[in-house]
Amino acid sequence: MTRLILGVDVGGTSTAAGAVTSDGDVIGWQSAPTRGATDPVAMMTALIAGVRKAVGYRADTIEAVGVGVPGPVDAAHGRIGEPVTHVPALAGRPLGPELRERLRLPVFVDNDVNALALGEWMFGAGKGSHSLVVLAVGTGIGAGIVIGGRVVRGVAGFGGELGHVPVNFDGPRCFCGGRGCVSVYASGRGIADAARARVAGNPHAVLVRAAADDPQGITAPLVFRAAAEGDVVAASIVDEACQAMGAMLGIIVNGLNPKVIVITGGVAQSLLSLEPKILGAAAEYTLTRALAATRIIIVPGDKRLGVRGAAALALYAERTSL
Amino acid sequence: MTRLILGVDVGGTSTAAGAVTSDGDVIGWQSAPTRGATDPVAMMTALIAGVRKAVGYRADTIEAVGVGVPGPVDAAHGRIGEPVTHVPALAGRPLGPELRERLRLPVFVDNDVNALALGEWMFGAGKGSHSLVVLAVGTGIGAGIVIGGRVVRGVAGFGGELGHVPVNFDGPRCFCGGRGCVSVYASGRGIADAARARVAGNPHAVLVRAAADDPQGITAPLVFRAAAEGDVVAASIVDEACQAMGAMLGIIVNGLNPKVIVITGGVAQSLLSLEPKILGAAAEYTLTRALAATRIIIVPGDKRLGVRGAAALALYAERTSL
Repeated sequence: MTRLILGVDVGGTSTAAGAVTSDGDVIGWQSAPTRGATDPVAMMTALIAGVRKAVGYRADTIEAVGVGVPGPVDAAHGRIGEPVTHVPALAGRPLGPELRERLRLPVFVDNDVNALALGEWMFGAGKGSHSLVVLAVGTGIGAGIVIGGRVVRGVAGFGGELGHVPVNFDGPRCFCGGRGCVSVYASGRGIADAARARVAGNPHAVLVRAAADDPQGITAPLVFRAAAEGDVVAASIVDEACQAMGAMLGIIVNGLNPKVIVITGGVAQSLLSLEPKILGAAAEYTLTRALAATRIIIVPGDKRLGVRGAAALALYAERTSL
Repeated sequence: MTRLILGVDVGGTSTAAGAVTSDGDVIGWQSAPTRGATDPVAMMTALIAGVRKAVGYRADTIEAVGVGVPGPVDAAHGRIGEPVTHVPALAGRPLGPELRERLRLPVFVDNDVNALALGEWMFGAGKGSHSLVVLAVGTGIGAGIVIGGRVVRGVAGFGGELGHVPVNFDGPRCFCGGRGCVSVYASGRGIADAARARVAGNPHAVLVRAAADDPQGITAPLVFRAAAEGDVVAASIVDEACQAMGAMLGIIVNGLNPKVIVITGGVAQSLLSLEPKILGAAAEYTLTRALAATRIIIVPGDKRLGVRGAAALALYAERTSL
């Protein structure tokens, strides 16, 4: 009988749940809106019930549940940390124990980017490699670090907060309270904010017109599109984002020298065509032989990768003591 | 009978060897000039013979030898990498096997900052802690990272090259070929270079007079001294060094969130009185709770710490398979 793990990827907008084989194949998945769910735990339970029914397996073939949640998570206790800007209803909740009681299954909860990193390490681009860093570039930038088969959590759970390492010590304030963080330049939010600041007071700017004359409607995908179409303001913002991404890669390559770096997340699709520019920038900030030994790839974000990663949390927890 | 390990700390200027107990006590040490030694292996062998004689123990109580060498080292084979700017005579040599044959003892060779990190982790400020980063600030800046009891070497041995991570992606070229590296701002060489550039063409500058009217005589300690005495140019260079150190600490605290960060090396003595400024800068670049969980201390460099660290290499190698 096929052994199945349930993976649940909780996002700010929607939550996806799927059944995953021990080889990492997602054999069925469903999603539901996160925003608006008054009780996200009930929503997840219903979603899981739907998946169980859809995959047509008896309940006893499901061995465990892994759940990836944005933001800080106390993985040892399955408790969601605070602040959780994306899913406020989960802040401080003992999600692991709550789900365990409802589902009568082992449940493992961790940060969603740690989950993605474990998924890539077990089944994806980093399969079998000693060390791997996953950068998830979306509204914010998160990272998961796996070295020697272990997730680097740090002493207080902040290991892998690479979105908030400075790439410019003289740079502007970041929304995290820090300064010159890579997120200021290269996250979806940072790119959109920079564009809005640059067109402020100029209602005729290409970006403002592209956003239906509402500067607040300027989004990162819109900036990438305008840059590709030759808008000078958008192009300079995208150039700066690529340069900051290159510096971030320099920090990872020279600092940790992992075998594989995967760039994924919602913004990764827009970065695909910019890969030569990003890798060119990375070469400016890295020791040549360190860079030569590290493979850097861009993998567009995909809900199934999130589901697979969440399932990997359960498989990982079996091998190690959290 | 006391169990002893020999530690050999190879520096660009001098090499120190000492006998170290399994508790990390350095019970005797000697040093010899590295520069000018035509055969550094013969010099090390003679130094070790001297230490053996001086500690008055019989040869059979010496269990192993650890050797810390600046620059890249293939620790698995005890071979010195290239380029080795500090000890050119060692470049590419199989130092481990050569010493093993001469001494008839197990010999373990690694990068000197990895050695320092293991020494701090086994016997010093990071004793018993899960994770530790040592920053050695001297002519250049090196680092050693220990997570979960293992040295982070990276896939090609560049793990821990934190001196060459960018803290300013728009910054000037570094001597490593990179750009905006922390070493540009905060290493001994970077500080002296910045000072020379700032006083170029001004023979009456305080720094030039302090260097006996020869701008080439400006050193980092001289810049720190002039800053403490109120020289404005020196003070602005020291301020920038502290800010860059803060950003570097931000990268480590947010990226890895280790339990302990030790700042040591030849420049650490000058940094002691600047600790409030450096920690203040670090607070600008770190997530508050991540910083609160990490202890940051400045430990002035000391040859005995190098010897102890080198001995720790041998103790570490016994526990793990390199």
